[in-house]
Amino acid sequence: MTLLDDTATTAFPPAERAERLAAAGAAWADRIERNPDAAHLTYTVTGRGTGAVASAITAGRHRFEVDEPAALAGDDVAASPVEYALGALISCQIVVYRLYAGALGIQLDDIEITAEGDLDARKLFGIDESVRAGFNQVRLTVKLHGPESDERYETLRETVDAHCPVLDLFANPVPTTVVLG
Amino acid sequence: MTLLDDTATTAFPPAERAERLAAAGAAWADRIERNPDAAHLTYTVTGRGTGAVASAITAGRHRFEVDEPAALAGDDVAASPVEYALGALISCQIVVYRLYAGALGIQLDDIEITAEGDLDARKLFGIDESVRAGFNQVRLTVKLHGPESDERYETLRETVDAHCPVLDLFANPVPTTVVLG
Repeated sequence: MTLLDDTATTAFPPAERAERLAAAGAAWADRIERNPDAAHLTYTVTGRGTGAVASAITAGRHRFEVDEPAALAGDDVAASPVEYALGALISCQIVVYRLYAGALGIQLDDIEITAEGDLDARKLFGIDESVRAGFNQVRLTVKLHGPESDERYETLRETVDAHCPVLDLFANPVPTTVVLG
Repeated sequence: MTLLDDTATTAFPPAERAERLAAAGAAWADRIERNPDAAHLTYTVTGRGTGAVASAITAGRHRFEVDEPAALAGDDVAASPVEYALGALISCQIVVYRLYAGALGIQLDDIEITAEGDLDARKLFGIDESVRAGFNQVRLTVKLHGPESDERYETLRETVDAHCPVLDLFANPVPTTVVLG
């Protein structure tokens, strides 16, 4: 990110963000009150194998590529699946921090998050079937910038963690079915 | 994806893919046999809030943007966090299909996957605290193209699902810690 981008980022008007978030929350509450079924969203994402082990993913009008480094037979043209999973977690946390900072009246100027995920490669390659295939631990470190007290930001963190969709996906099992179609 | 892209995709030499995957598997087995600690990988991904509710994510030398549509106070410049999570699942499945098709000697020409994830927006907005924040169900539909029998592809699917890191992340809880740093 260039300095110009940084300036543009920091310059996003806090009042406009707060207004958008309040309006979004009010619109959802109104929509769901009028029709409870409006709360039930289904996200649909499609992907196709490309290259050696890469994928082209389509989500509505957005597309992104996923690949692996050479050590996993890829061409390293994009981040890997597990890196996208950690990026999904980070970005979801950021949305929910913005949402609840607004709702709780807690000033939050900037936010940076680092996610570390530990993976044992033995299961993937069938070297040891007794370990798990996915992350055995994930650690998030959240840096909140703003003028509020540590206690206020800790209250914000607890509220965010109770309402963050992708944190819930990581921390709890999701009933997942796979069929050949 | 244009027809040209499709041609390029389909044209990836199957023999080269098989060779890369076999070499990658052998290299990992050798590396882990010499030093069991080599199996323990830690992936580190960082992100920073940008725009209204967007994120800029960095994973090694790769970067990607995440945003939300207007209904969630975003500018819709990129896919949303939960869409990236589904894309991570799809792309991880594709890698593992390629890996185990090679290992089991099952011919797999092309692969397409659709993921659907059901989310109840009431928790995110604090309208109903009794529902879960994340996906309450995810459905994957996997289309495998090639000359093998349904039974062979079903065997492949079972093997893939037992070894796929991001499917494990979805289906099982991951101990996840969050600290303000």
